[in-house]
Amino acid sequence: MIEPMARVYNFSAGPSMLPEPVLRSAQQQLLEYGSTGQSVMEMSHRSPAFEPIIQQTEAALRRVMHIPDNYKVGFFQGGASTQFAMVPLNLMTTGQADYIVTGVFSKKAAAEAQKFGQVNIIASSADRGFTYIPEVKGLSCTPGASYLHICQNNTIYGTRYVELPQVPGVPLVADMSSCILSQPVDVTQYGALYFGVQKNVAPAGMAIAVIREDLLGHAKEQVPTMLNYTTIIENDSMYNTPPCWCIYLTGLVLDWLENQVGGLEKMEQRNQAKAALLYDYLDGQEFYQNRVEKPFRSLMNVTFTSPSPELDKKFCAEAAEKGFVNLKGHRLVGGMRASIYNAMPQQGVAELVQFMEDFRRANA
Amino acid sequence: MIEPMARVYNFSAGPSMLPEPVLRSAQQQLLEYGSTGQSVMEMSHRSPAFEPIIQQTEAALRRVMHIPDNYKVGFFQGGASTQFAMVPLNLMTTGQADYIVTGVFSKKAAAEAQKFGQVNIIASSADRGFTYIPEVKGLSCTPGASYLHICQNNTIYGTRYVELPQVPGVPLVADMSSCILSQPVDVTQYGALYFGVQKNVAPAGMAIAVIREDLLGHAKEQVPTMLNYTTIIENDSMYNTPPCWCIYLTGLVLDWLENQVGGLEKMEQRNQAKAALLYDYLDGQEFYQNRVEKPFRSLMNVTFTSPSPELDKKFCAEAAEKGFVNLKGHRLVGGMRASIYNAMPQQGVAELVQFMEDFRRANA
Repeated sequence: MIEPMARVYNFSAGPSMLPEPVLRSAQQQLLEYGSTGQSVMEMSHRSPAFEPIIQQTEAALRRVMHIPDNYKVGFFQGGASTQFAMVPLNLMTTGQADYIVTGVFSKKAAAEAQKFGQVNIIASSADRGFTYIPEVKGLSCTPGASYLHICQNNTIYGTRYVELPQVPGVPLVADMSSCILSQPVDVTQYGALYFGVQKNVAPAGMAIAVIREDLLGHAKEQVPTMLNYTTIIENDSMYNTPPCWCIYLTGLVLDWLENQVGGLEKMEQRNQAKAALLYDYLDGQEFYQNRVEKPFRSLMNVTFTSPSPELDKKFCAEAAEKGFVNLKGHRLVGGMRASIYNAMPQQGVAELVQFMEDFRRANA
Repeated sequence: MIEPMARVYNFSAGPSMLPEPVLRSAQQQLLEYGSTGQSVMEMSHRSPAFEPIIQQTEAALRRVMHIPDNYKVGFFQGGASTQFAMVPLNLMTTGQADYIVTGVFSKKAAAEAQKFGQVNIIASSADRGFTYIPEVKGLSCTPGASYLHICQNNTIYGTRYVELPQVPGVPLVADMSSCILSQPVDVTQYGALYFGVQKNVAPAGMAIAVIREDLLGHAKEQVPTMLNYTTIIENDSMYNTPPCWCIYLTGLVLDWLENQVGGLEKMEQRNQAKAALLYDYLDGQEFYQNRVEKPFRSLMNVTFTSPSPELDKKFCAEAAEKGFVNLKGHRLVGGMRASIYNAMPQQGVAELVQFMEDFRRANA
């Protein structure tokens, strides 16, 4: 028997909430998927039981994101940290690439790429504590740069690109781990995009990359087989045993997104409404501060501080008692962070805002 | 409501059956783990909800396998295929290493290592179609070899080492993906051992490595961060988001192994009994053939053929109809393969043997 639920509102930056209908489907099918008599966790990846799952998941991703036919999709083990190496190992064909640094993960991506070639940091928002995104209009790249890499949403600082850099002849490569599937995307603006799945898509343990096909096939022979995009993509993500459970959950989430939410336009409306609840509240008082420059405020990660680190701590502790968990900000920035990914219901954000106001009144 | 079960006997070489009590625990806790109000799939890996899960899982593995304190344990994304690169990238300190080739995966491991240094194949069982394991008593290694690599159980051919090569001064490195936790192990015989979890441990998407600490810390700077054992191990497998769900299931399986089976000695007895059912039956008739030389027969993967490829095909189809699934042998060897990992109940093997006999009578 399944017991009655007392689920919390989980504001974790990732792994994070999954839609409750998705969890209920996974639970119902856990010992037996359809008429297969097996859990998806037990299926041979090369069996007629699993093959439709991976095929339908890729097809759903292509539909939801409108991925053009000249882009390949791969399911990769490991998260974005592994992609930080795969991107240069596969795409840095000229021996150099350009990176824009807007926070911790874009910096990590650049540092990893430096192992394999020359990295040019052509823009950065470090000067004002990563509270904004550098101007990208009219940006130019280093002559000979293989690609331009960005991190599209910065989980720790709570910023996001509202406009994408578009440099003629230089493919844009984006880490979209913390904004994927949160709003419509024009895939043709990218040479490649990738994301760890553990924020908006599935449980941790997989990254998905979407790569324009002309960029594939140029990795050197010494690249580890499992870090070569082509190995995985040419074998339909079945070169070796893929992370079947993550793929299955991705399929369930995409089904929820298509058939219960109604697609990425509808998802964006929900996300805009949730973020507005928080930002409007933050802008209407002075107890809490959000340091991000307004145009670059993330829809997914809303950062704020109370008047003191002691009050921040008290805030997080009292919030957790009331069922709002994982609100502590990253240690680099302190304060609080409410990550409000796709699966966070509007009700959760509304209740958090009410709690924030109660806490303010009690502590101002 | 959970519907009544009609679970099949799944003889897949991997991913493969998980113990039913493990699946039932995972199902019950799927929306809410303990009093956390969250699914394990949703937990921040750096939260007090998840930390005990990973710590207890490592502790349980250490208890069950009697891992000495001077060995480190790491949970890695990707399976054994990724380990094929990590082993040489981290352990091939002299620029060369020795490999014994006893099947497809040991060959793949050797081919991958050749990207990073000189590989010496010092023994092979290719001459008799991988139906045996080369003599390891008195084996000597190439002067200067950093390590000696073996694949301890060969999933495709159905063979296993019964004695381990022990070359003074040359650490043994073993891929134990398809025999891990199936019987007691003397970890001190290895410099390092690793295994993809998807056969005897957990759903696909993770490898675990157990490495003697003096062998760590020698990777070159250019090694991708995520392929450096030290990165993961020094950060208690939390350098980045680990595959939390696989770690949790590993913990549930270890709990089953410790508390329901009674440890690795008891597990080996069960596995011996299951394998004996099949091998004794095979040895008592002439319709089916097992080509493996008797001393090297795997306890986990039992291969056999009927008199013709047509009958093999008929066998697999009729077996599947009766709920014995994934019995088709690997395309390289044809015939049938019954993988009878830890979670396959004795009853499943007994019923398979009965089916084999019925099929023989009908088709001999």
